[in-house]
Amino acid sequence: MSYFTGLRCVHCGREYNPDEVEYFCPACGYHDGILDAQYDYESLRKVLNHASLAANPDLSMWRYLPLLPVQDESSIPDLHVGWTPLYDAPRLAAELGVALCWVKDEGRNPTASFKDRASAIGVVRALEQRAERITCASTGNAASSLAGFAAAAGIPTTIFVPARAPEAKIAQLLVYGAQVFCVQGTYDEAWELCMQASAEFGWYNRNCAINPYLIEGKKTVTLELIEQCATVTPGSYPDWVVVSVGDGCTIAGAWKGLREMHLLGLLPRLPRLLGVQADGCQPFVTAWRTHTALAPCNADTLADSIAVGHPRNFRKAMDAVLESHGAFVAVSDQEILDSIPLLARKAGVFGEPAGVAGVAGIQRALASGIILRSESVAIIMTGNGLKDIQSAIRSAGRAISIRPEMEEIRNAVGEPIAV
Amino acid sequence: MSYFTGLRCVHCGREYNPDEVEYFCPACGYHDGILDAQYDYESLRKVLNHASLAANPDLSMWRYLPLLPVQDESSIPDLHVGWTPLYDAPRLAAELGVALCWVKDEGRNPTASFKDRASAIGVVRALEQRAERITCASTGNAASSLAGFAAAAGIPTTIFVPARAPEAKIAQLLVYGAQVFCVQGTYDEAWELCMQASAEFGWYNRNCAINPYLIEGKKTVTLELIEQCATVTPGSYPDWVVVSVGDGCTIAGAWKGLREMHLLGLLPRLPRLLGVQADGCQPFVTAWRTHTALAPCNADTLADSIAVGHPRNFRKAMDAVLESHGAFVAVSDQEILDSIPLLARKAGVFGEPAGVAGVAGIQRALASGIILRSESVAIIMTGNGLKDIQSAIRSAGRAISIRPEMEEIRNAVGEPIAV
Repeated sequence: MSYFTGLRCVHCGREYNPDEVEYFCPACGYHDGILDAQYDYESLRKVLNHASLAANPDLSMWRYLPLLPVQDESSIPDLHVGWTPLYDAPRLAAELGVALCWVKDEGRNPTASFKDRASAIGVVRALEQRAERITCASTGNAASSLAGFAAAAGIPTTIFVPARAPEAKIAQLLVYGAQVFCVQGTYDEAWELCMQASAEFGWYNRNCAINPYLIEGKKTVTLELIEQCATVTPGSYPDWVVVSVGDGCTIAGAWKGLREMHLLGLLPRLPRLLGVQADGCQPFVTAWRTHTALAPCNADTLADSIAVGHPRNFRKAMDAVLESHGAFVAVSDQEILDSIPLLARKAGVFGEPAGVAGVAGIQRALASGIILRSESVAIIMTGNGLKDIQSAIRSAGRAISIRPEMEEIRNAVGEPIAV
Repeated sequence: MSYFTGLRCVHCGREYNPDEVEYFCPACGYHDGILDAQYDYESLRKVLNHASLAANPDLSMWRYLPLLPVQDESSIPDLHVGWTPLYDAPRLAAELGVALCWVKDEGRNPTASFKDRASAIGVVRALEQRAERITCASTGNAASSLAGFAAAAGIPTTIFVPARAPEAKIAQLLVYGAQVFCVQGTYDEAWELCMQASAEFGWYNRNCAINPYLIEGKKTVTLELIEQCATVTPGSYPDWVVVSVGDGCTIAGAWKGLREMHLLGLLPRLPRLLGVQADGCQPFVTAWRTHTALAPCNADTLADSIAVGHPRNFRKAMDAVLESHGAFVAVSDQEILDSIPLLARKAGVFGEPAGVAGVAGIQRALASGIILRSESVAIIMTGNGLKDIQSAIRSAGRAISIRPEMEEIRNAVGEPIAV
């Protein structure tokens, strides 16, 4: 049973019944009127506690059902999402120079990224609303996760991608049976068409920028993180939670999960948030450093999942980092590439560029005195390295070419090998 | 605690203490002298039963520790392997025309394939033997899983690949920190060099063809399958377990797991095995149909993970299928490609060609009267579709190219869409 009570506009504070409004506050419009799901936390404290969680056999994101806006449990697709592994990675901690380092491997989700948590709840909501089709505009993990969860639930999808989208990413959508419109134009044009089509045909809209339910799925990553810490490293919780930042929705979700665990008495003190961006696309870093409003910018980074020049959830994400007394840092593409083998070799986790950016971000934050060497860090590794093999190739060094003779091996084994 | 008692030669029946011999029966040589791990099943019945399993909080392959050849639990790497999702897929069952269809999604393992189960135990054994390095010859899932688990355990690896190995597959090995020798020669030359180097330098040998421990990891897939059936579909167990077949080690492992569950009283009756090969590489099918010995052949199929013309575990795999009263079938590359979107759309699982071949195999076996429509089937889906994006592209159809105008969408939405 859910303790979801309604939606509240983060701009004007108006509250809405879930049946009154679906996407944004009509009074404030969709740029400002982001809605935030509300719960009856007083009652939740009685049902979500150490004992009830320890006794809960559901090892998926749905174990937090009381804290999710789900009205009809029968709508939950049968695709195992969440409860991804949390690793205590002492060799990575030593390499980075921090007291403790956890890695939450979100690449282990059904379509191999963190976005599965958001798509799962989007599909549930669409089914509850008896939608006949779901739509979104994206070329990345949001699209593939929507396609995967919609296929599992048996509901059709229409996905809008800009013409420059790589063939491989489109292939995954088509495999899952999505109808894919390749728009001869920019991403913004694809997004605009998606919005119009959603309105005209009544398709359920999974765009995270305007759909308040998706962040509720995203927050489950930190609900799990905190609960898993108690098993993996009893008594220890992170001083910092490290998240790469694109449109801002992920870090805002991470913060909501942390605040809720704290509110429920399951986390003794709140960590700080480190938001990590790429040098070539750092609107959050700029605004945070200069205490200014968002100035949209171009996006020039190989970390495509965080290449968002105009973040749609700027306010929620900035508020989260400020409220946590955290920080934003930016890292170079080369530092991101270097983080791929570092994370794989020291923690056994193979990530895509945006997924590993947090590793580089910790190094940057240590160097500038933002994170202290006595502190502990938890990295949300958002996507599987198999999603971007080209970057892996660029990051990984070279094989040793030899003739098929033992002498060649004898000569080579003297060489230093990195592990 | 393990109830592992020793190794027995499948050819001559000699028994060995685990400290006496590591890889194969010295009396029979490595072609014939495959060793099989032995356990004290009498004692195991007391510790592995419905009650003990229900109370076991370890949701990984290590929950079956009493039934694994592990002597030092502290050697187990901290990378979560096994307990992959088992889905009851009614829409796929309806499409195939069978009573019930389960899909075991092995693409959810740490390096995205079933081979992680074998590499996990290989790394444990190497650490127990105080090996300083592990080696194997492969370009595929065995290599990437070894590289991943060795990285997690902090033990160096040397991997031999033939010169024609695709760059992307080598990249994953390098990312994990493996030393990769690209041998200017054939796969057989790479394999031979690996054997020699293992002998000369004392590197632990992870080649499944000669290492008896790896199959013990592989068998955990059916230990789990049977245990999970009891939750997913209470009271129902598969009539057929469907496995794609390359060198034969996987289906032999699957059979060992099933026999053990039966022996322990956890499976009321043994299923039959359906071994699925590709038309372009079907030595098992040929030998099974004609009741003849293995005739090695060329391998010509896009399903690279089962493109094995000279299977190293022919005897074990053939015996398993015969003992189960099962069958072998071969399917075309086009049928394999067609199975990629079919499985993704009807069950939400995106697989690589060898992983989905079982779906095509069921269709073939139904058409030829081997499987009956009243029966139930369980597919072991062995590898993630992200491992082979080129095949996904070939399988998936095309996106609809449009100008950024609503009229284009209105025209297109009348079109039929497959889900």
